[in-house]
Amino acid sequence: MSDPVLDHLLGDHDGIVSRLIKYARIPSVSTDPAYADGMAAARKLLVDRLRAAGFNNVEEIAAGGHAAVYGEWLGLPGAPTYLVYGHYDVQPPDPLDKWHSPPFDPQIRDDRLYGRGVSDDKGPASIALEVLFAYLAVEGRLPVNIKVLLEGEEEVGSATLPAILDQYADRLRAEAVVSADGARWRADLPSVNTGSRGNMAFELALRTASKDLHSGRFGGAVPNAAHVLASILAGLHSRDGRVAVHGFYDGIGDPDETIRSDIAGLPFDEAAFFAAIASVPHGEDGFSTLERLWLRPTLEVNGMWSGYTGEGGKTVTPAEAVAKITTRLVPGQEPAHVAQALLRHFEAACPAGTTIHFTSRDVGNAAYLVPPDLPLLRAVEEAIEEALGARPVRVRVGSTLPLSDMIKRALGIDTVTLSFSTADEDFHSPNEFFRLSAIEEGLTAWVALLRKLGRGQA
Amino acid sequence: MSDPVLDHLLGDHDGIVSRLIKYARIPSVSTDPAYADGMAAARKLLVDRLRAAGFNNVEEIAAGGHAAVYGEWLGLPGAPTYLVYGHYDVQPPDPLDKWHSPPFDPQIRDDRLYGRGVSDDKGPASIALEVLFAYLAVEGRLPVNIKVLLEGEEEVGSATLPAILDQYADRLRAEAVVSADGARWRADLPSVNTGSRGNMAFELALRTASKDLHSGRFGGAVPNAAHVLASILAGLHSRDGRVAVHGFYDGIGDPDETIRSDIAGLPFDEAAFFAAIASVPHGEDGFSTLERLWLRPTLEVNGMWSGYTGEGGKTVTPAEAVAKITTRLVPGQEPAHVAQALLRHFEAACPAGTTIHFTSRDVGNAAYLVPPDLPLLRAVEEAIEEALGARPVRVRVGSTLPLSDMIKRALGIDTVTLSFSTADEDFHSPNEFFRLSAIEEGLTAWVALLRKLGRGQA
Repeated sequence: MSDPVLDHLLGDHDGIVSRLIKYARIPSVSTDPAYADGMAAARKLLVDRLRAAGFNNVEEIAAGGHAAVYGEWLGLPGAPTYLVYGHYDVQPPDPLDKWHSPPFDPQIRDDRLYGRGVSDDKGPASIALEVLFAYLAVEGRLPVNIKVLLEGEEEVGSATLPAILDQYADRLRAEAVVSADGARWRADLPSVNTGSRGNMAFELALRTASKDLHSGRFGGAVPNAAHVLASILAGLHSRDGRVAVHGFYDGIGDPDETIRSDIAGLPFDEAAFFAAIASVPHGEDGFSTLERLWLRPTLEVNGMWSGYTGEGGKTVTPAEAVAKITTRLVPGQEPAHVAQALLRHFEAACPAGTTIHFTSRDVGNAAYLVPPDLPLLRAVEEAIEEALGARPVRVRVGSTLPLSDMIKRALGIDTVTLSFSTADEDFHSPNEFFRLSAIEEGLTAWVALLRKLGRGQA
Repeated sequence: MSDPVLDHLLGDHDGIVSRLIKYARIPSVSTDPAYADGMAAARKLLVDRLRAAGFNNVEEIAAGGHAAVYGEWLGLPGAPTYLVYGHYDVQPPDPLDKWHSPPFDPQIRDDRLYGRGVSDDKGPASIALEVLFAYLAVEGRLPVNIKVLLEGEEEVGSATLPAILDQYADRLRAEAVVSADGARWRADLPSVNTGSRGNMAFELALRTASKDLHSGRFGGAVPNAAHVLASILAGLHSRDGRVAVHGFYDGIGDPDETIRSDIAGLPFDEAAFFAAIASVPHGEDGFSTLERLWLRPTLEVNGMWSGYTGEGGKTVTPAEAVAKITTRLVPGQEPAHVAQALLRHFEAACPAGTTIHFTSRDVGNAAYLVPPDLPLLRAVEEAIEEALGARPVRVRVGSTLPLSDMIKRALGIDTVTLSFSTADEDFHSPNEFFRLSAIEEGLTAWVALLRKLGRGQA
């Protein structure tokens, strides 16, 4: 069953890779103002490509932060419209000295493309765009109406995306969203993501004296901020691995035995999973590793520091200690409620003479579940089956796709992910890579999905 | 009771201050190779002054590190010989922007001399040297034989002092040491230090995975290094404030009730002590603040870190965590034994799947006690009483004077401190200062001490 659009795309493999490399050469790091030029250059490249392909109303839309790139092709009045999402910003490249080739000079080695952003999300988003452009080039039209939204703040928590969604709600209206961001669970098993955990970020700072004190002149007679923080953090979990914060689990239903049974039936090499990271299973008693990752919330320190952290030593009794903390939330948990529970917990845990400052770094994102019978979900499953030759298993992700929750709140529509990056591609680490084999898989699936949408299959 | 040497000194107050300022202008920072010229200039100044005053065999003696300056006056064959100790190196001046006047351009304000090293130890050491020089100038001789040792590595842990003491043991032999380094407990109460705590420095590093992991993709199912470290550190002390490490207290005798009673009798404004540092009493149950500082050992985190510590947040589950730890030791505790006890404790506390790396950063210094009936101690007490008009109280210091322990081990002799800096003079901080009023007190006491030693009173 040859498809002219897919044939066109497969014949242009080298062109697709070289355009991806050109795109990935642009250092579009959203978190650091030093990369403002790279951000602007990435937007310009996308605007130019969308316009050249025949998209209309292509422009930058912003609400106080990095602009998103928007474009639309609405050539089928009366037909449904889908919103295709991706992002053009990337993680910072640090630490630079850990890269085997320069982060912004992408290199191919062993059928993998190495460079910052190639997997998250320039490779997967390029697949979606190349398919859209190929339809327009080969057939002069798309099978359905398509709006494209390419965000510039995904790597900094989509800070102004809710405001963009509010401000441009009319323009962005659609049946549903197909996200080219997100990662496949594994390279060896076709899967579709049907749920993600929410998250919220906090900072806990405490002080036990006006300044770091000499450990000889004061040590043993004054509180030590590092000790106080260690005790408070050690008290966040009980011995059974549960979060020991009153109210933290409020709203979470009992585990769904059907879902647990489905998860238990998934092929999963737990030994290989832990061997790959040189670690061991750990977590809440009574749950399997996949359940811990997909069905259960977390409360974790992402970073902490206190006192002297330079070379050698310094004999101080630290007066200050700080922890950065995030939680991953599951359906039923409200971010604001969890924040309140943590605040009460830390206030109660704070010993006399210690002052504590607990703040939320964001408003949080709730967990998100794709409705199991969403027509778009079924269309995506079939498209993946056509591309990969096997029905995908339904999985969840332990991480957070804030987009889904934001879109649901702002536009009232659901999001299904069709991404061809893979979770092991080091996309927040040095030596990020993208499997070149994913390009053909992705092109095939996206071509098939658009055909199905055009036939009204969603 | 006029004393010609003291009269000479008191008449030369301005000359003494101006020579101190000239000495303190030299940036003799031992820890930073960029100050090598300052180190050399300080040595040259001392060598020149010792020679000009009439000292013999004046030279630099070294054992692989910064040289010490040595000189001797042994004009009284058969008479006892004392070793006078001081150091010419100073702390780094950083942070420079916190200084109200330049650290190496000493300025007088409110009867205080401000500058790096003026209190630690250039001011106190200059007092001792000025007295020795005045004796030679006025009387053509010293009351006893004197050897002078001015170290260049006190601020970097006296790294090669043990080697110098070994290598030059014959030359340095003496009845006892009078140290012009160390600080008076308070400006308002004559005191003599009769003991100091020992110390030892460690680093505890642990690893729970091969790299920091994405908190969404792994969080909840793998150990978190920050949590593991927090639990281990929280377990170092029990609720009664005692160190919860088996064997840590080995060798420490029961508290001496006479000493406790002496300490309880000292004037000590505890409320002011804590108000000055905006902190509260804390520590081992059953001991007062001064007992906690002087009689009890500590085990303290000086610094710790794990995961992401930059601006904003990063959703990682940290794989590594590190704590810098020091202990302050009291008489009876052996550094090597304590290190062993800690190693066993950490190995036992390390959960499955975590690798731990516990290292000593040095060999440690035992606590030091001046023998209560040491003749030199009594002579120093009387000299202080003559200078200040009141019998000094015997106090201890919570910090460590490694010199005393090193001298005792290498030469088998005791050390008594006769210093006129004060513990509040910010000597490891910006705006180090030296009370000019201490100069007359110090000259008076040193003149008196040498007279007493000359009369065989020690």
